[in-house]
Amino acid sequence: MKAIASKEDLIAGITRTAGALPQRPSSMQILQNILLTFSEEDGAIRSTATDLEMAVIVDTPATVQKGGSITVPGKKLLESIRELHDGEVSLVVGDNNRLTLKSGKTRLTLLGTGREDYPSIPALASDSSVTVDADAFRAAIRRTIIAASKDDARSFLTGVNLIVNATETRLVATDGHRLAISDFEVAKAKKSKSDINVIIPARILSEIAANVSGGTMEIAVGETNVVFTTGVGTYYSRLIAEKFPDYKKIIPSATDRKIEISRQALSDSLRRVMPFTNLRTNAVLIAVKSDHLVITTETPEFGEAQDEVDARVIGSSMEISFNTRYIQEMLKALAGDELVIEMGAKLSPAILSSPSEKGYSYILMPLRG
Amino acid sequence: MKAIASKEDLIAGITRTAGALPQRPSSMQILQNILLTFSEEDGAIRSTATDLEMAVIVDTPATVQKGGSITVPGKKLLESIRELHDGEVSLVVGDNNRLTLKSGKTRLTLLGTGREDYPSIPALASDSSVTVDADAFRAAIRRTIIAASKDDARSFLTGVNLIVNATETRLVATDGHRLAISDFEVAKAKKSKSDINVIIPARILSEIAANVSGGTMEIAVGETNVVFTTGVGTYYSRLIAEKFPDYKKIIPSATDRKIEISRQALSDSLRRVMPFTNLRTNAVLIAVKSDHLVITTETPEFGEAQDEVDARVIGSSMEISFNTRYIQEMLKALAGDELVIEMGAKLSPAILSSPSEKGYSYILMPLRG
Repeated sequence: MKAIASKEDLIAGITRTAGALPQRPSSMQILQNILLTFSEEDGAIRSTATDLEMAVIVDTPATVQKGGSITVPGKKLLESIRELHDGEVSLVVGDNNRLTLKSGKTRLTLLGTGREDYPSIPALASDSSVTVDADAFRAAIRRTIIAASKDDARSFLTGVNLIVNATETRLVATDGHRLAISDFEVAKAKKSKSDINVIIPARILSEIAANVSGGTMEIAVGETNVVFTTGVGTYYSRLIAEKFPDYKKIIPSATDRKIEISRQALSDSLRRVMPFTNLRTNAVLIAVKSDHLVITTETPEFGEAQDEVDARVIGSSMEISFNTRYIQEMLKALAGDELVIEMGAKLSPAILSSPSEKGYSYILMPLRG
Repeated sequence: MKAIASKEDLIAGITRTAGALPQRPSSMQILQNILLTFSEEDGAIRSTATDLEMAVIVDTPATVQKGGSITVPGKKLLESIRELHDGEVSLVVGDNNRLTLKSGKTRLTLLGTGREDYPSIPALASDSSVTVDADAFRAAIRRTIIAASKDDARSFLTGVNLIVNATETRLVATDGHRLAISDFEVAKAKKSKSDINVIIPARILSEIAANVSGGTMEIAVGETNVVFTTGVGTYYSRLIAEKFPDYKKIIPSATDRKIEISRQALSDSLRRVMPFTNLRTNAVLIAVKSDHLVITTETPEFGEAQDEVDARVIGSSMEISFNTRYIQEMLKALAGDELVIEMGAKLSPAILSSPSEKGYSYILMPLRG
């Protein structure tokens, strides 16, 4: 096996692939390896990693002089490539599955294994697929994924609900405290046997949001798997085989109060009072006045804080409490500065949205007391 | 108590002061507080922190309307000031030792205590003192401190030996594996009762290197304490009351091999082979050739690496092993690109130095095998 590729291309490809390496120590040591396949026909080095839940496959352009496959420790491979000289890297596999990287006067030899022990990525029998604009879809992921639960005990809340049917194309996530909904545009839909309504693990979506940009992406959904075919690689994942909660009943149908406010000003204000919030609840009390909000927080240990933010308020004054972390995560996910907050009664959920993020809403449960 | 100061000045002052807060939880809760004294006479807010080993006292310029003292939680104070609006901050102490910071429409109230419980910083009966250029001295600290031991069991090696006598003005540190010596210039020496030869804890020197710049600094040494009077504040520390080892016998008197090499090229090369070093020893083997070095490393788990760096070599070829981390720490502490390595026999210490860092040498023990 022998190939030549540029350091820059290799770093881009192997970095993306390494995103699928197991995040925790796995009983299957081989999963810490990346499978490299040199293909003369494709003029590419194909790199594959998987933790058995998800997989990433990337083709890096290369001049392949002799094809074949090998697996090598993924993190060591990435560390090794990163420090190489800029320019061309030669990759040669010698006896006993030893992969040597050569660039300039540097020779780095990684001890690998044959591909026999490496799990194969199951082929997908796709029922339905949609094609989306990659940048728009990753923006939708970023705005939605913040509301997914980090608590493994309720696995159906740790994923994002992908819905495609005659009337809706959206991503939905909730952890029970907040609910994020992002509608996105579909460029092209394959004639589907059925509508799509599945739960995709947050991790694969994070990888896509972090690594894919430009062009279009095809999302193909099967019985138990999803495959994202993107301009930079192929992302596979198992689906979470559970039922997503009926989120629509949480969305308030009518609110009698509307606040228009600068995202940056609200975020700055929340950051100022943050050191004085209760470490467990992160509670802030927001008093809605005729033309501004008064934000206060108080803890017996640290002291108290009060701040004001100008706002355009339609509706009557009221007081309401929120977990400030949940607001801040949403504000960070937005791009524009205009924020709209709709509020009903003291204990009803608020709806946060932005005119610059069409089809996005973030529904936040208030805190009691 | 009432004063007005600029946010910028307060951040600078309180950040420096906070460097003396205990790094680990202390049984004396009060030490987590910073003592603030508003002085009408000095037109300053004096902030003091101590962990009982060291103390930092900084005066922040302020318009003081009413003097007095209070202590407040140090980290909360710093967090609070950081997020305030730019510009003027008003500091008001009300009933029950409540300190309120006001800026714009923001009011942050910290719960403090009276100054009665706060330990007093002992006055120094100084025997000897020297005045040095602050920037030159912090450069000397940075180059020396890397060799101090992190192992508390041998406390006399965790400090830096400050020596001032008729022939020498230098800092020395060693952890038994390497030895760093920095000579520095003295601008002015007070007539001394005796020469200075003390061990200063590394921590206070780190704080000074990180926080003091410009102007001169007076170093006054007493029986058990040292005080650095700088342009930005006063740094106190206890001395380590032990005897520094006789380091001079470690310095090789003659070496029969001299290597001139680019610091950057050597550092890059060591970084490239680093993923293949033994995690415990960090060993690299350096083969000295007529006009270059060949650097190799090998571990049974990961594989092996080889690299070459051009060098000007005077003397015969040889092979020698070092802990690469110890070389890298020294290379990072240098400013210029020219590095000189003098070597004797395979198991004799090497001397690393740089023409651009006058009076500095770094003596490194080789590894066996």
